[in-house]
Amino acid sequence: MKTKYTIGLDFGTNSVRSLLVDVSNGREVGTAVWNYEHGHAGVVLSRDPNLARQHPADYLKGAEATIRKALSIAKASVKGFQKEDVIGVGVATTGSTPLPVDRKGQPLAFQAKFANNPAAMAWLWKDHTGVAEATEITELAQRIRPHYLAKCGGRYSSEWFFSKILHCCRTAPKVFDAAFLWVEIADWIPAALAETEHPGQLAVGICAAGHKAMYNNTWGGYPDAEFLSQLDSKLADLRLRLRPQAHPIDRSVGGLSERWARRTGLRAGIPVAVGAFDAHLGGVGCGITPGTLVKIIGTSTCDMMVVPNTTPLADIPGLCGIVDGSVLPGFFGLEAGQSAVGDIFNWFAGTICPQGKKSSHEILGAGAEKLKPGESGLLALDWNNGNRTILVDQALTGLLVGQSLHTTPAEIYRALIEATAFGALTIIDRFEEYGVKVEQVVNCGGIAEKSPLVMQIYADVTGRAMKVSRSAQTCALGAAIAGAVVAGASAGGHHSFAAAQKAMTGIKSRAYLPKPAVHAVYQDLYPIYRRLHDAFGKSEWQGNLYGAMKRLLEIRNRARN
Amino acid sequence: MKTKYTIGLDFGTNSVRSLLVDVSNGREVGTAVWNYEHGHAGVVLSRDPNLARQHPADYLKGAEATIRKALSIAKASVKGFQKEDVIGVGVATTGSTPLPVDRKGQPLAFQAKFANNPAAMAWLWKDHTGVAEATEITELAQRIRPHYLAKCGGRYSSEWFFSKILHCCRTAPKVFDAAFLWVEIADWIPAALAETEHPGQLAVGICAAGHKAMYNNTWGGYPDAEFLSQLDSKLADLRLRLRPQAHPIDRSVGGLSERWARRTGLRAGIPVAVGAFDAHLGGVGCGITPGTLVKIIGTSTCDMMVVPNTTPLADIPGLCGIVDGSVLPGFFGLEAGQSAVGDIFNWFAGTICPQGKKSSHEILGAGAEKLKPGESGLLALDWNNGNRTILVDQALTGLLVGQSLHTTPAEIYRALIEATAFGALTIIDRFEEYGVKVEQVVNCGGIAEKSPLVMQIYADVTGRAMKVSRSAQTCALGAAIAGAVVAGASAGGHHSFAAAQKAMTGIKSRAYLPKPAVHAVYQDLYPIYRRLHDAFGKSEWQGNLYGAMKRLLEIRNRARN
Repeated sequence: MKTKYTIGLDFGTNSVRSLLVDVSNGREVGTAVWNYEHGHAGVVLSRDPNLARQHPADYLKGAEATIRKALSIAKASVKGFQKEDVIGVGVATTGSTPLPVDRKGQPLAFQAKFANNPAAMAWLWKDHTGVAEATEITELAQRIRPHYLAKCGGRYSSEWFFSKILHCCRTAPKVFDAAFLWVEIADWIPAALAETEHPGQLAVGICAAGHKAMYNNTWGGYPDAEFLSQLDSKLADLRLRLRPQAHPIDRSVGGLSERWARRTGLRAGIPVAVGAFDAHLGGVGCGITPGTLVKIIGTSTCDMMVVPNTTPLADIPGLCGIVDGSVLPGFFGLEAGQSAVGDIFNWFAGTICPQGKKSSHEILGAGAEKLKPGESGLLALDWNNGNRTILVDQALTGLLVGQSLHTTPAEIYRALIEATAFGALTIIDRFEEYGVKVEQVVNCGGIAEKSPLVMQIYADVTGRAMKVSRSAQTCALGAAIAGAVVAGASAGGHHSFAAAQKAMTGIKSRAYLPKPAVHAVYQDLYPIYRRLHDAFGKSEWQGNLYGAMKRLLEIRNRARN
Repeated sequence: MKTKYTIGLDFGTNSVRSLLVDVSNGREVGTAVWNYEHGHAGVVLSRDPNLARQHPADYLKGAEATIRKALSIAKASVKGFQKEDVIGVGVATTGSTPLPVDRKGQPLAFQAKFANNPAAMAWLWKDHTGVAEATEITELAQRIRPHYLAKCGGRYSSEWFFSKILHCCRTAPKVFDAAFLWVEIADWIPAALAETEHPGQLAVGICAAGHKAMYNNTWGGYPDAEFLSQLDSKLADLRLRLRPQAHPIDRSVGGLSERWARRTGLRAGIPVAVGAFDAHLGGVGCGITPGTLVKIIGTSTCDMMVVPNTTPLADIPGLCGIVDGSVLPGFFGLEAGQSAVGDIFNWFAGTICPQGKKSSHEILGAGAEKLKPGESGLLALDWNNGNRTILVDQALTGLLVGQSLHTTPAEIYRALIEATAFGALTIIDRFEEYGVKVEQVVNCGGIAEKSPLVMQIYADVTGRAMKVSRSAQTCALGAAIAGAVVAGASAGGHHSFAAAQKAMTGIKSRAYLPKPAVHAVYQDLYPIYRRLHDAFGKSEWQGNLYGAMKRLLEIRNRARN
């Protein structure tokens, strides 16, 4: 049988990437990136630093450009490649990034009168204008629907669906009133490719709905009308128009439309999979299975696991989400994460301690690598952007303790890396405390690719091997895998995700292994991290910190002698 | 009557300074500095980073050179000036800086066999080789002589007299056995000028003995023989040779010798005052009186007050020393301090965040000055070199909390300045909690002279005016004042310190006044500082820190809006 391919599209914060993949072995035969045209690096901003929007025209233009480019690369480099050998499409996006649409499912931003109105555009995941609304939703749920919060870590975020929509309702009522529906771009983009974006026809994904819009089949889908009406009666009206059922990514939203076939060069009618969030499809692209923790490590992290949905599973306090089918059909998808990882390193190396013309990360990293664990006497909390898991609290900040008059920049840089590693260990421990065993850790993302120093410290702190995904484009790869599953085995794709992942994913042969002597020192340091973590992060904590500085000095003196 | 002058000598860590002063009005008519010749910038070092010694030959050579130079400057610039118009000499030195001497009071380092042996030199104040011995002395005193510790903040320091001597006894017994006596350079240098350094004739000062050698008239002078014998029987033997009585600085150790008159050009026989520590004479040079807190602010601070010794005074926990007559005769001298102030700013501006070719302090200071109090969301503890007052604990370290991904170097720089200001406020509060009212604060030292930013923040944090001493050489001025008092009114000097200070000291007309709106913000921030201070610094503290970051964010948000 002739080699078949699928294409994965990954709509990021600043650009969209396409990845054309051989479904038999995961070989990546063409890839292209297109930078969004609107705003600053694709993000529409305003004076309000919380505001971050995207113009939906960029999604369509970017899809066309990157698909065409990837096809032409494959055509040029793979003998016998034909566009007709592409059998399916998958879509990964940021989220929660809801977009207001009209009665036909067309973005309000496409109408002349709303073209330059940020409220009519897509409300990007990192838009925080709905801070007050998030608090209001959390407080209402605590009072009357605590079970809603139990599935999303106990707190509803300003980054999520209803916070944004309620904020629009309050601050831009003309846009709100003109919107027939609000659609995650994870749902809207696949539908646009299949031209099934009409609200009556639209297929929405469980990933976005379950993690960000409190959708759960056990309570009948989205939050109930009574709950929403206590926030605003217009939200209760909107609920009537929200889709009754959300789907995992093994379902097609429709076949690629004739028009999109012409625009891209793909075959009309090839199935387009239900869309999902980038991180979740990144998990798929890393070969996620029960027992595997997938960590996507970049500016922040997303940590994912899956558990068969036939297993009874308690709510796990502090996890951002536990959603049936959100990562893989048939499994609970469990999502945790750290609000800032690479962002902390970039802040220190870029803002606080720039090293002149050479790469600050290179210079600070080289210095940090020479240090023994514990010898700086420093310890940090990785909360410069709050704490996502396990405290679910944005109103937390960074902390550094142990400075002397001789503390060096490289020592602080290493302490910040270690802090994120301690944060990662706290997440692993939380999974295991609730019976979700972590048998292996597979990393992907920029830091996993580029920083052996960080990966080695993660191995040494956690006492676990850090494996790295073979693909550097795991989110797009995960989307391509979804494309291969919705195409099905009969078309040359795969009959299941298990089969598709087995064929299309892999890990690099070199893993970072923990060094026992180094791990032993981190086992002395981690309790101090946890003491600070609990003292500053938990209202119920009682104790004192008198020993913390002294213990760090003891460990320092031992490391130096 | 013809104008009379006295000369003050200030023996510092790297150099000695002379200051020739008009006793009628404090006018400074000649000054000279001479850098010590031995070691690195005057400090003899070794592989052991704790070791810091000075060669006593430098003291004599430096005294000669700087007195001659100051006299020649005055001769050239003051009409009618004659060397015969100088009527007294005073001496300020570092301490505790003990020096082993032979049966005639001559330094062992002057003998050929010991000339290059650091143990036979002066053990500079910052020599920390006696760390283990300090602990041993503290533990013994806690057990059998707790009242010894009550006068020195509860802990005996490695910087002090008996720690150093005991360390010499243990590690350099040949030097110890060759030493007939150990003499503070504050006592030895004045005696050398008067040639009264013979151990049977030597006059020792209460300042050094009382603050650093546990001397107290209420328990019969130095620590008793039984106590010392439990440390080492040789210390008990040494006690027999220590001087039975220590004196305030209103007493002369003798007249300037004929030989020193020839060496310097001064008149033979003019009185040389009992010596004292630089900071204490700095207090005198700032015009210290009851109700006045004198702060000498440089790399670290020394904070001094005096209380009439007729007033009943409780022991004040955490103060480095409470000694009758140590600053001024007839008053208890109270000493507190911060282990690092300018050193913390230098560490950040020099090591962590250098700003290229321009002065880092200038650039960071300019940025810090533009900030509103509280708007950074940061708070620091000023413990990079431990905490001297009120915790008396070297085993404490720095802490910074409140960092976001947008925190700037100037914000951190300001937070570090604020931290030292909070530390200063804690000392003021401690004085007042124990009934010692602080009616005014007079500052001197490098930072008081050079940093309006720091002084303004100190005013705003403490809610008190920060006054600055008129003289930039307050330690040498204090020594010159002592010279004027021992010369006496009949010789054209002064009959008392009160009279001498009134005539010879002053404060600058511009004081830094607290701004009420800024002070109000610091009144919100200080309780958070104290909570961290107590949580990390006191073993008995119990509580939690959950609110600390949140409160800082609240104050930040209020400051920004």
